[in-house]
Amino acid sequence: MLRSCASRLRKPGALRGPLGGTPPPARGSRPPPVSPGAGRRERAAGPGCVWGEPRSFSSEVIYVDHSLPNSSWSKDMRLLFDQFMKKTEDGSWKRLPSYKSVSPQRIEELKTFFPDAKPIKEHMSQAQLFPRSLEEGLGFEYAMFHNHVENRTVCIFQGGPYLQGVPGFLHGGAIATMIDSTVGMCAFIAEGIVMTANLNISFRRPIPLCSVVVINSQLDKVEGRKLFVSCNVQSVDEKTLYSEATSLFVKLDPKKSLT
Amino acid sequence: MLRSCASRLRKPGALRGPLGGTPPPARGSRPPPVSPGAGRRERAAGPGCVWGEPRSFSSEVIYVDHSLPNSSWSKDMRLLFDQFMKKTEDGSWKRLPSYKSVSPQRIEELKTFFPDAKPIKEHMSQAQLFPRSLEEGLGFEYAMFHNHVENRTVCIFQGGPYLQGVPGFLHGGAIATMIDSTVGMCAFIAEGIVMTANLNISFRRPIPLCSVVVINSQLDKVEGRKLFVSCNVQSVDEKTLYSEATSLFVKLDPKKSLT
Repeated sequence: MLRSCASRLRKPGALRGPLGGTPPPARGSRPPPVSPGAGRRERAAGPGCVWGEPRSFSSEVIYVDHSLPNSSWSKDMRLLFDQFMKKTEDGSWKRLPSYKSVSPQRIEELKTFFPDAKPIKEHMSQAQLFPRSLEEGLGFEYAMFHNHVENRTVCIFQGGPYLQGVPGFLHGGAIATMIDSTVGMCAFIAEGIVMTANLNISFRRPIPLCSVVVINSQLDKVEGRKLFVSCNVQSVDEKTLYSEATSLFVKLDPKKSLT
Repeated sequence: MLRSCASRLRKPGALRGPLGGTPPPARGSRPPPVSPGAGRRERAAGPGCVWGEPRSFSSEVIYVDHSLPNSSWSKDMRLLFDQFMKKTEDGSWKRLPSYKSVSPQRIEELKTFFPDAKPIKEHMSQAQLFPRSLEEGLGFEYAMFHNHVENRTVCIFQGGPYLQGVPGFLHGGAIATMIDSTVGMCAFIAEGIVMTANLNISFRRPIPLCSVVVINSQLDKVEGRKLFVSCNVQSVDEKTLYSEATSLFVKLDPKKSLT
């Protein structure tokens, strides 16, 4: 039951698990409505995108893929994005879109795992994916790419001025957020809906505010329902190691409620 | 040099270290300007506050303490706040205010630790403390209290709808952010300016969106410049353990640049 469900959900478009991540919409599914405050109707999924096709519905608002370049992106961020887009051309890497909101269909799927959870209904009207909830350029600007053969997910990340910890540097929680999102995506793509069980981060050096870093994650091992994913956070020139992390994810079992 | 500096900074009002935290303003220092978008001029530090006194400057904007109740707080959140405020009456517990911005004086102090850091100057005009950067009620609503005798810092936390991970539940990064902020504050109060070196979080159960939880942190050990702080995240009725974490902080040495 679990295997068949996981297999179904592992296909492009299924949601990744709780506690961090970027849920991609199902291929061919109806797009979710743009959340209040998103303020943009254009730029649906673009080239190199593995999940979600640009679609138009005359009576619906087009959903917005926030992992495409915008005017707040620095030169470093754009150059990195272009480099990875080049890698998508031969199909070895895929760009992963990301959205603020989740479609009603996905929510229904997730209820299988959280049958007793009241908040799913109560707070959905306002809810937004945490790493996409700050306005453009002020918070998390990022794009992820995945290599299926190597089981690697890479995130290029520019941390805006609202992510400050000590003056001039990123807050540890902001770094943890992007690490959790990246390793979580790596685990999800490999095995379907998963939940973060452990996240162990070593902060080697503080990351300057508004700089660009690269988060490299790698699926190291799968043991039954356990997935082990490691990652590091480096400067664009790869000369500075900012953080390292290991993580443990658990594939969810729809027969066992977690709430 | 380090000891004298740490001792000076350890007094109420000194900043805590990078990578997470809530910098309190120095007692009697000039308040920092309200950051753009804060949108409120009232509610400076209130009763039970250990750092920062309500002050008025005719020619300056009053800074805002965001750790006081607002209309977005749920009944659970208010009840908990009142319970802890009761505990401040005999002086055993102190409420810790928190602000979006940092005063220029604090920035100058921190330059001692980051002499080569350009971003401190470049991005200060827009910068906001990450856990205070979302609008009231949508993101992190929290208040912290500290017990000096027991070396404990407690954070009461209501996670708003913009902190979503899987639909209906908090993102792991949002939980990590509040854990980092709480254990970081506990370490700072004990030993002055510190830096998060490691954060190891075990997520036991997902936290429903918009619920209230209690983060209990405890300084376990100090070994030279290393501080070990543990914590757990529980439901208000203490019946559900959501997360557990251990952390390692390192006291900063102003003679050694970290950037």
